[in-house]
Order: sequence, then structure tokens, then C-alpha cells
Amino acid sequence: MSDAPSEIKALTFDVFGTVVDWHGSVAREVRALAKSKGLRLNAVKFTKAWRAGYRPAMDRVRSGELPWTKIDVLHRMILDDLLVQYKIADALTEQEKVHLNLVWHRLKPWPDAARGLKRLKKRYIIATLSNGNTGLLVNMAKIGGLPWDCIFSSETFHHFKPDAEMYLGAADALDLTPGEVMMVASHKHDLRSAAQHGLKTAFIKRPHEHGRNKNPDLASEPEFTVNAEDFVDLARQLGA
Amino acid sequence: MSDAPSEIKALTFDVFGTVVDWHGSVAREVRALAKSKGLRLNAVKFTKAWRAGYRPAMDRVRSGELPWTKIDVLHRMILDDLLVQYKIADALTEQEKVHLNLVWHRLKPWPDAARGLKRLKKRYIIATLSNGNTGLLVNMAKIGGLPWDCIFSSETFHHFKPDAEMYLGAADALDLTPGEVMMVASHKHDLRSAAQHGLKTAFIKRPHEHGRNKNPDLASEPEFTVNAEDFVDLARQLGA
Repeated sequence: MSDAPSEIKALTFDVFGTVVDWHGSVAREVRALAKSKGLRLNAVKFTKAWRAGYRPAMDRVRSGELPWTKIDVLHRMILDDLLVQYKIADALTEQEKVHLNLVWHRLKPWPDAARGLKRLKKRYIIATLSNGNTGLLVNMAKIGGLPWDCIFSSETFHHFKPDAEMYLGAADALDLTPGEVMMVASHKHDLRSAAQHGLKTAFIKRPHEHGRNKNPDLASEPEFTVNAEDFVDLARQLGA
Repeated sequence: MSDAPSEIKALTFDVFGTVVDWHGSVAREVRALAKSKGLRLNAVKFTKAWRAGYRPAMDRVRSGELPWTKIDVLHRMILDDLLVQYKIADALTEQEKVHLNLVWHRLKPWPDAARGLKRLKKRYIIATLSNGNTGLLVNMAKIGGLPWDCIFSSETFHHFKPDAEMYLGAADALDLTPGEVMMVASHKHDLRSAAQHGLKTAFIKRPHEHGRNKNPDLASEPEFTVNAEDFVDLARQLGA
């Protein structure tokens, strides 16, 4: 039996952390690269620092300090700074840097993701709503077998979450009211922004988004429309 | 064996006429509605007139006479004019008009379309590049089982074909050069515009786009990268 609010027509998904394991995927490639090049490097710390540069870089675009810039380019700016900090900028060829930067296109889906999405797709429109760029999200979906109906990215709207243009833009592009759209994310701040603009919300618990033993805030919240263990649980709760 | 230009990474598809049968689908619904309401109406002529209003309506947006307007809204403007011309504006309820207008979301794919796309998807990124709006294309894909990797619409770029922004915008959003993208269409003018901007081209022969016995121009042209009978033939020729 479904207790899903019957007006929901589409689910929009945060991607990094919610659908794919950025931490594990990036750390694994960084570790392998360091090993093959003989570099001494803490891959987990490097990965966290790379990711930590993401929000400030987007905020430079959001504030107007930088013109519109794709995440691929922001990722590369952060990477170049990090390589200097780690004193290994000269240890990698340009081709190796380009390849490493595109690790964000190769992030691995959580084990339940493709299976849950296939179930949800039967009943709902399923779309990304990610600060990633379109090409990144398309490549990731092909590599990971993610069956999106539609890719909405920061590039679609030339805005980054939590700007209203992202949440309302997705609803409008699908000819839906905000209340007919459910934002799905493992980050409470993303859901709170979506709810502020009238979207329904589904909180997904991803205990290992930042690696193991990190003890993130996984508490269910009554403010969210649904709290789910993973995408298969979300499908079950939505009757899909 | 494939003789496909090996640099092709993505195929972008015209949709109305190339992927789906607008003529048959719209005429069928118009005929059924007329019958159920007891209206005397030539469904084929009505369908052709509706479609004929499409290019001039888009051109009013392209010239700046109208602000940015979705195809759903343009379709409704043309429909309302037609209903007045046919003196049946009062014979339909608002709900019936809304439903009829959305027939463009329910256009039926040509028999080879889904099968050919599934093959092509294994080797290439497959995306729409249509003057339709995003919601229309998403709904059509769900109803017709069209497995797009990505939906590019006039709404994505706020331009209509043949504006350069459509062809170049799709390549840029996928982080590809124009030469890595192949435009697929049953309309030679669309392909010629794409080629002008550096895209590869595939001409698809759709003998019944305007109904049967219409004798459209189906001649292969050496100027196109590929000339194909249908999507399955295209997949074969591209080695997919």
C-alpha cells in the first residue's frame, strides 16, 4: 500500500552523495594514481579538500565574482590549487590532470541507486537536479546505468542550488507546480531549500557519504515528506 | 563492419516527423474527438493546418515580436485560431481543448524508433534536439518508451532551430566539438543548418510524415554524412 501524496508527478534528485559515492570513487582513483606515480599522498584528505573547495567556488559564481562557470572548470581550478599545495603540480602531465579532473564523471552509484530508480521511473518522472554540469551528469548516467528521464543541471538554469531558479525551474520545465515535485537528497539543507519553494521532500540516509565511521546526521525529520533508508525504500514508501 | 566517422560521440535527434508520427497521431485524435462530439471536420486538413501554423508562430518568437514562449503555448494559440476558423470554438469545453492541445505530448513513435534508439544508445549519447518544450519531450518519451540519455529542447537554450544556439548549445552542453555530434533528422533543411555549424548529419527517410501518397523528397544526398532508411538502418550503418 502506498501512502504517497497522490499529487506527486516527478522526483528530482540531488546527485553527489545522494545517488553516487563521490568520496569512495574519488579517493580510490586518487590513491591508484598516487601509487602509479610514486607520490606520497593521503587520498582521503586530498578527496575531502577537493570536495571542500566546491561550495566556495560555486559561491564565487553565485555572488557574481566569477561569470557563469561549469563545475568541470571549477573542479579543475580547485584541483590545480590543491596540486600546488601538495607540491605535485609538476608530477602529473596535463593529460593526467584532465583525466583525474573527470573522475567526477565516473562516480559510482550507491548499490541501491539504479535498482531504486528503475522502480521509481515506472510511476514518476525521475530527473537529476544537480549542481553538476550536463555533460558530467550524462556521462555518469551512461557509465553507472542511471535511467533518468531528464537531466536538469546547474547548466540548464545557469544557477546553482540553493538558488530558487533551480527548484522552480525544474517544476516549470516539466509543466508542474512545485507541489507536484519531490526533491530527493541526502542533505537536509538542500531539502529545506526545496521545501521553502513549495516542493515535497525525501530525505535519503547515506551513512558513508563522507567515508566510514563519520557519524553524519542521519536522523529522520518530521518536516520532510518522506524519510527513507535508500532508493529501494523510497520506492516502497511511494508505492512504486 | 562500421564505416562510421570514429569521432562521433553523440547523436542529436529532431523529434516531430523524425522520431514520431505527428500527422497520424494528431489526425487520429482529432477524428475521434470530432466523432464523439458530432462535429463535421476533415481531420487531415485540420492537422495539416495546425502543423502549418507552427513555423510562423516560432518565427514570431525568433524575430522578437513575441517574448520567449513554449511550444505548448504556441500550439494552443494556433489551435484557438483554428477552432474559430472552423466555427467550433464553442463546441469544446476548456478541458477538452487542454487535452487536445496536449496531443503533441502523445505522438506515436515510428515502428523502428525505440528499437533503433536502444541500439544507438549502446554506442552513443542519444539526445533530443527539438523545438518542442522539455515537458512535452519528457512526457512523449515516457509514453512512447524512447530511451533518451538527455533532453535538449528549445526551452533548454531559449532558441528555436535553425538558430545556431541550438546546434552549438547541444555540443557545448555535452563538452563535445560540433564535429563530434551528428544531427539526425528527416528534414533536409534542419541537417543543412546543422552542417553549417560543423555537425555531422544523418538523413532519415520518413515517407509518411505528411500522410500516405504524399511523395515527399526522399532522395539521398551525398552532402549528408549518412542517408538511412530508418533508425535500425542508421544503427547498422554506424556500427551500433
